[in-house]
Amino acid sequence: MADERFFQLAGPFDLAELAEISGAAISDSDAKGRKFTDVAPLSTAGAQHVSFLDNKKYIAAFTQTSAGVCLVDPSLADRAPAGMALLITPQPYHGYARIASAFYPASALLSGIHATATVSDSATVGDGVQIDAGAFVGNGAVIGANTRIGPNTVIEQGVHVGVGCQIAANVTLQCCDVGDAVILHPGVRIGQDGFGFAMGASGHEKVPQLGRVVIGDHVEIGANSTVDRGTGPDTIIGAGTKIDNQVQIGHNVQLGQGCIIVAQSGVSGSTEIGNLTVIGGQAGIAGHLKIGDGVQIAAKSGVMRNIESGHTVGGLPAQPMKNWLRSVSAVERLGKKKGKTK
Amino acid sequence: MADERFFQLAGPFDLAELAEISGAAISDSDAKGRKFTDVAPLSTAGAQHVSFLDNKKYIAAFTQTSAGVCLVDPSLADRAPAGMALLITPQPYHGYARIASAFYPASALLSGIHATATVSDSATVGDGVQIDAGAFVGNGAVIGANTRIGPNTVIEQGVHVGVGCQIAANVTLQCCDVGDAVILHPGVRIGQDGFGFAMGASGHEKVPQLGRVVIGDHVEIGANSTVDRGTGPDTIIGAGTKIDNQVQIGHNVQLGQGCIIVAQSGVSGSTEIGNLTVIGGQAGIAGHLKIGDGVQIAAKSGVMRNIESGHTVGGLPAQPMKNWLRSVSAVERLGKKKGKTK
Amino acid sequence: MADERFFQLAGPFDLAELAEISGAAISDSDAKGRKFTDVAPLSTAGAQHVSFLDNKKYIAAFTQTSAGVCLVDPSLADRAPAGMALLITPQPYHGYARIASAFYPASALLSGIHATATVSDSATVGDGVQIDAGAFVGNGAVIGANTRIGPNTVIEQGVHVGVGCQIAANVTLQCCDVGDAVILHPGVRIGQDGFGFAMGASGHEKVPQLGRVVIGDHVEIGANSTVDRGTGPDTIIGAGTKIDNQVQIGHNVQLGQGCIIVAQSGVSGSTEIGNLTVIGGQAGIAGHLKIGDGVQIAAKSGVMRNIESGHTVGGLPAQPMKNWLRSVSAVERLGKKKGKTK
Repeated sequence: MADERFFQLAGPFDLAELAEISGAAISDSDAKGRKFTDVAPLSTAGAQHVSFLDNKKYIAAFTQTSAGVCLVDPSLADRAPAGMALLITPQPYHGYARIASAFYPASALLSGIHATATVSDSATVGDGVQIDAGAFVGNGAVIGANTRIGPNTVIEQGVHVGVGCQIAANVTLQCCDVGDAVILHPGVRIGQDGFGFAMGASGHEKVPQLGRVVIGDHVEIGANSTVDRGTGPDTIIGAGTKIDNQVQIGHNVQLGQGCIIVAQSGVSGSTEIGNLTVIGGQAGIAGHLKIGDGVQIAAKSGVMRNIESGHTVGGLPAQPMKNWLRSVSAVERLGKKKGKTK
Repeated sequence: MADERFFQLAGPFDLAELAEISGAAISDSDAKGRKFTDVAPLSTAGAQHVSFLDNKKYIAAFTQTSAGVCLVDPSLADRAPAGMALLITPQPYHGYARIASAFYPASALLSGIHATATVSDSATVGDGVQIDAGAFVGNGAVIGANTRIGPNTVIEQGVHVGVGCQIAANVTLQCCDVGDAVILHPGVRIGQDGFGFAMGASGHEKVPQLGRVVIGDHVEIGANSTVDRGTGPDTIIGAGTKIDNQVQIGHNVQLGQGCIIVAQSGVSGSTEIGNLTVIGGQAGIAGHLKIGDGVQIAAKSGVMRNIESGHTVGGLPAQPMKNWLRSVSAVERLGKKKGKTK
Repeated sequence: MADERFFQLAGPFDLAELAEISGAAISDSDAKGRKFTDVAPLSTAGAQHVSFLDNKKYIAAFTQTSAGVCLVDPSLADRAPAGMALLITPQPYHGYARIASAFYPASALLSGIHATATVSDSATVGDGVQIDAGAFVGNGAVIGANTRIGPNTVIEQGVHVGVGCQIAANVTLQCCDVGDAVILHPGVRIGQDGFGFAMGASGHEKVPQLGRVVIGDHVEIGANSTVDRGTGPDTIIGAGTKIDNQVQIGHNVQLGQGCIIVAQSGVSGSTEIGNLTVIGGQAGIAGHLKIGDGVQIAAKSGVMRNIESGHTVGGLPAQPMKNWLRSVSAVERLGKKKGKTK
């Protein structure tokens, strides 16, 4: 069971409820009424716990688990230990995610504005909004219903935040529109000036950054990540895109929908990225490029050219994955040869 | 026109005013009195808009633009569409930056200390300073005239901030002196301890970091960047240097004037960098190096040796740019050869 | 002398006191009563100053210094200038660290809760704790004796912070237990959700992150670093480990004791790292790996495989250091060959 200082356990749920929550089918309709109290990994789960098998690496653990019920793909259902109930679905991990969320729901909001928060008279605050201690909401800002604004977070003037968002503590928002059901983790900075200068030996002249950041619904952005506003056009984060910690998104970048951007990577100004593209950790993408849909970019890659949809790349500079792997092997072979110093 | 929730449009300005603001020459003195209401890109500008041509890639757009007036280099003036006014200057982008700043000036400060801010009685606050909600200014700190201290920003004891600075929200300053007209974006951390330990298997002993950070005039530092204070000597950021988001500057680093440091790069302790040097994104520079003036370091480079003024380097480890490009070609060729596995 | 706006000088100390503080032996017992007023580098130290020789590069400076007393290894004591007192120890830099800390002790805490801080009635605050302006301490949180919570720092519900910690300004803590004598620099984010999704083309489903972060005693974490909480197991930072600025630690990572993690590096989810391992700046370590004790990982490396204790690696992907250095030489040679374009 998760530490109750931090997580509140709901339930129990019976098997019929779990099937509905997860969208999975019940293997044995006689078990519909059995009650379950928590989620747990295969190795530690007991008779009252829900577990799941998502990765074939864990089939052995699955065959030996004491879990009361498991989410499992139909093709592996016959490997289950005798007597265990099954929730059968082609997406066991998705089902588990929904069940775990049901057992550990987000805390209910404490509707209201904390006495130490500062909210402008001209701001609009929706029903059920929780604005925490020390938070600041500027003139003309709009906070959608059932959104939480964490302690000491700063929402500058005019910003719109959607419905059902979780804006954590110590966040800064300016010059941006945030969709619904968006999660911003602590220390996120959205909408500050992009890095734009008319450069010259006698001084770099600041170019006003007159665009915004537009963040789609269901976006999540990790702790201490930064998204600069556009120069005139907007910087855009497509709906459902998930961004990890310490990621940098430059001005005018357009990120598609459902992308996954892993920690400490960066996308330089004016680059356009399609939908469902994955960027590995510490990767960097140069500016003014076009990256397609469903592209996969290996961790630590340095992308300097356009990439068409569906391609996988790696290396510095990034090349097609197969070529990169061969380059790596060749370079490692060079490293194993001794005595060749000329 | 920029979103008026975030940007306030000034003007209109007539051509004579625009010439004065930009330092450009008017092509047609009869047009001096024509009025302009906004800036816009070549492709969307209309008769009342100011645009510019700075990059030869856009000559075609220039020849077809409907902009009322363009900033342009003298050598390209004859490509202008008939009837368009011109502001002629060898630095069209600099001119544009100044004109855009005139149309969209920074908001006037709301002089005063917000009721929820905490300012020590022993701090000195200049005329016209705006200290926002939840900000903290410690004992003996000095805030120069016409500086803004953003919401929930923390200025620890003794820190001096110059005149006309913009210190954004959620910033932390300690053990530092900040020059005039400095811009610090949200989440910047200046003056914390450098990473200094007397290391050993039985425990790493913390070495007191007894220096400061000294930041020159007209410096800009991007969101969530960090600058550690010196060990005894100071960490120095030269005047006019522009630092992007999520950059790390180690203790005792000396950055020259007018440098450009792109996002997510890092400079390790005690390295000295000259003037007008450019560091690409995600580059890293080892400690105790000397990097000259006007050096260009490619994105993602790992610099492990001193670099003389005027040189361009790239790669990991960084080598002269020409060599790196040849290395890259050679390695990519290795990656294209199949079947060579021994 | 360090800038007295930021650092308060204690002392003077006589030689007997310095010997006790540093654990070093006095070369000349007649000098026991000599008093010293400050620390200084060899090159600028005067008769009243304490200096040290730790690196053979500085032997020349040592032979010429005017310092009144130096910490020095026994093997180099005979190179001292005539008349200088010596504090003899095999660990001169450790001794210096202790003496410098005695001359410049941390400021005494101002016990109490600032009027603008928000501390829950159900929180437990130890003796001598200083809670600064705008700080927030949530329900059920526990703050150990003699800990400082900096301005605008946010301690969410249930978090335990140990005794004698320094939690700087603008920090966010949630779902974590922090040991004793821990130092967290400004902008550190601990305990936010790890980056966990059940991914799919029709949407990435958030997987609840039900673990914590557990931070050992004497840990130090640099400005704007981020440590995600575990998915169910905890993320663990071993005692005495020192983490630099802008480091990212993923969910379920287990870091051993006494590790050194340099700026802008990242450790991906579920990787286990032993004791006394050193990770260079901007290095990245893939997920689900096992890295042993005393491993050294070069700056900017990309680690994709397990590493056994005691090994040194470098490169992208990381290989044994000797091989990497040979690879680098070979690749640089390729870069110097002209005309070979096929």
